[in-house]
Amino acid sequence: MKAEIVTIGDEILIGQIVDTNSAWMAGELNAIGIQVAQITSVSDNPEHLVEAITNARNRADVILMTGGLGPTKDDRTKNVLTSYFHSKLVTHVPTLEHITGFFKARGLDITSLNEEQALVPECCTVLSNPAGTAPGMWFEDDEKIFVSMPGVPFEMKQLMTDHVLPRLKKMNTVGRIVHKTIQTIGIPESFLAKTLEEWEDALPEHIHLAYLPSPGLIRLRLSAFGTEEQLLKKEVEEQTGKLENIIPDAIFGYGDVTISQVTGGLLENINSMVAVAESCTGGMIAREITSVPGSSQWFKGGVVAYSNEIKENLLGVSHQSLLDFGAVSEQVVRQMAEGVRDVMRTEYGIATSGVAGPDGGTPEKPVGMVWIAVAGPKKTIANVYYFANNRERNIIRATLTALDMLRLMLKKQ
Amino acid sequence: MKAEIVTIGDEILIGQIVDTNSAWMAGELNAIGIQVAQITSVSDNPEHLVEAITNARNRADVILMTGGLGPTKDDRTKNVLTSYFHSKLVTHVPTLEHITGFFKARGLDITSLNEEQALVPECCTVLSNPAGTAPGMWFEDDEKIFVSMPGVPFEMKQLMTDHVLPRLKKMNTVGRIVHKTIQTIGIPESFLAKTLEEWEDALPEHIHLAYLPSPGLIRLRLSAFGTEEQLLKKEVEEQTGKLENIIPDAIFGYGDVTISQVTGGLLENINSMVAVAESCTGGMIAREITSVPGSSQWFKGGVVAYSNEIKENLLGVSHQSLLDFGAVSEQVVRQMAEGVRDVMRTEYGIATSGVAGPDGGTPEKPVGMVWIAVAGPKKTIANVYYFANNRERNIIRATLTALDMLRLMLKKQ
Repeated sequence: MKAEIVTIGDEILIGQIVDTNSAWMAGELNAIGIQVAQITSVSDNPEHLVEAITNARNRADVILMTGGLGPTKDDRTKNVLTSYFHSKLVTHVPTLEHITGFFKARGLDITSLNEEQALVPECCTVLSNPAGTAPGMWFEDDEKIFVSMPGVPFEMKQLMTDHVLPRLKKMNTVGRIVHKTIQTIGIPESFLAKTLEEWEDALPEHIHLAYLPSPGLIRLRLSAFGTEEQLLKKEVEEQTGKLENIIPDAIFGYGDVTISQVTGGLLENINSMVAVAESCTGGMIAREITSVPGSSQWFKGGVVAYSNEIKENLLGVSHQSLLDFGAVSEQVVRQMAEGVRDVMRTEYGIATSGVAGPDGGTPEKPVGMVWIAVAGPKKTIANVYYFANNRERNIIRATLTALDMLRLMLKKQ
Repeated sequence: MKAEIVTIGDEILIGQIVDTNSAWMAGELNAIGIQVAQITSVSDNPEHLVEAITNARNRADVILMTGGLGPTKDDRTKNVLTSYFHSKLVTHVPTLEHITGFFKARGLDITSLNEEQALVPECCTVLSNPAGTAPGMWFEDDEKIFVSMPGVPFEMKQLMTDHVLPRLKKMNTVGRIVHKTIQTIGIPESFLAKTLEEWEDALPEHIHLAYLPSPGLIRLRLSAFGTEEQLLKKEVEEQTGKLENIIPDAIFGYGDVTISQVTGGLLENINSMVAVAESCTGGMIAREITSVPGSSQWFKGGVVAYSNEIKENLLGVSHQSLLDFGAVSEQVVRQMAEGVRDVMRTEYGIATSGVAGPDGGTPEKPVGMVWIAVAGPKKTIANVYYFANNRERNIIRATLTALDMLRLMLKKQ
């Protein structure tokens, strides 16, 4: 089974946004054994869209479209598809009720533009979109499948996950791909590649390894190609086991798990809580933690101590240490971690202090230098890292590294 | 003049990388008045590439290709183009000298695979690539232009900047596009569309409006098509002026500016500082603020008061208010904003308290309900919002709304 992705809308063609949807969709389709033959971005022009899907159906069995479903005038996908499939627009009552409820819950009145979003081509199967007002639409025409979804990433992802991927998986009976994603942290890509070289070279022909680096993390993806899903799964598990023996500390989880979920799980296991004291990470550690639903079970709170005054007044860092060693120092970051642990009365404390950049670097303390400390009931550890010269990446890397330092402390206890 | 972009290689189609090249190229082409009609990602398969460029030449005057020029076996673009243009491969001596020097400088020996990179189709104009070993190739065929470049972003960018864009600019004597992005916040898309309907309908034929929504924000983009750049710019400014009169409060900036940059700029103008007290936003307001370089000029710090204990102990929220009204209440959020302003000794304080979800909702305080307060030297204001049922979006929307409440307070003073 082959698929094509067609994204609709001018914002990609004028370079205003980067198309991240297609990469996500392609990854998900691959994961259920469906190859993507082409990705096409077209404008809002109706003839252009018709041309694109006409060409796509000659190459693929499934055509997934995103975009052009908003309530405004520049969104024309629905009308184009209605005429392409020689259908007519009818009101889909459950969608109308959902839209009405959606606005009511926000204390807003529904407009005629919103009501029009409940109109769908009569020939399609409506895929409900709880996250938005434009539903997904599933068409079957001459053995080919066409799906239209909103371009808003989280709406598209929910529709794909809830409806489109399960339906396609059921239909795609031959050719299996089994993927497993292994999340690693703490070893740079070139070192990881050297460390894994021997194991990688010994992988069987039908199992591929891919490196998927992102700031602070490297995901490894094993893909096994074949016909028997159970056998492929077993082989992938065996290889994963070998990998765990080579880099036991660097692997923090599998699949989509995040470092905050893993670290939080370890804290929950021992009924302990953490608090954070952030200088250069500026709130990102707290943000990462609280993006995990239920994190209030193991996270009490944090102090973003951006100025030295806050480090002293709220965290009890000694004035003398700030004078003697500066804010970016082992002494201060230790006091911050221990201070927030005391003030918030938690078992664990995390602290960061560094030079995120672009300004503020000196020869002794260059941009990218970050001190991180973790205070526990038994001891406090502190490490210094030298990241790069990009502010955003330095903040991300310091955040993930700090959460990983706590993970390793908890793991070793 | 119209262009199309064709990216070649499997890594985009399997979802391994996000195609950031195309957005950059499209932006650069637009800037010199060349519209991008389509972006197509195809595999390494030769027939597929030929099909893609054959279709593209029917729609566009310029076809820009990236990828498939590496030294390994899966890179076949050059051979495909040689046969497509009925040409033959010949050694390009300056390229061979460049490659030899490239490896020598790194103390490496040249391999036959590297030498083959100096072979080019006889019919093309070679575009030198100082950053890598595969040169760019420029073809002219039947009034159409085809350019092949490496897919490595910095090599492609240098070739575009040094060779391709200057050449195209010289050829493209007619056709200019002027874009302007207007950033709005606080009015949902369908309401904004209603509010702007009359103005939008009165736009001249050659000026288009697009809505680009993202959680919490809507960007509006005006695009003017014509021949005289100065005139187009003037017309776009006139329309922007009209828009400012219709939605004066909702517009917070133009282009790529963020709400934290704008709010921070207003604080800096009056030499004032802000501190934040976050419950449901969990650190994201601080994170947004500190992503702005130099924000330490106007941001002192924050408290992530995830538990009630922290709200009481660090922010001075009254125990009785927490008992009487609960953490998600006007009373508590006002005390948080005023408390953090006092504790951190700043002119302004921002606070959030809400039910981010997915759990924790009740009939009186449903998931998505968020109280936000802003405390200033003269007064404290508090508003309640009812967002949706998605945790991540609720956090983002509450964060942007909180920063916008401070912006409006500063603007009105």
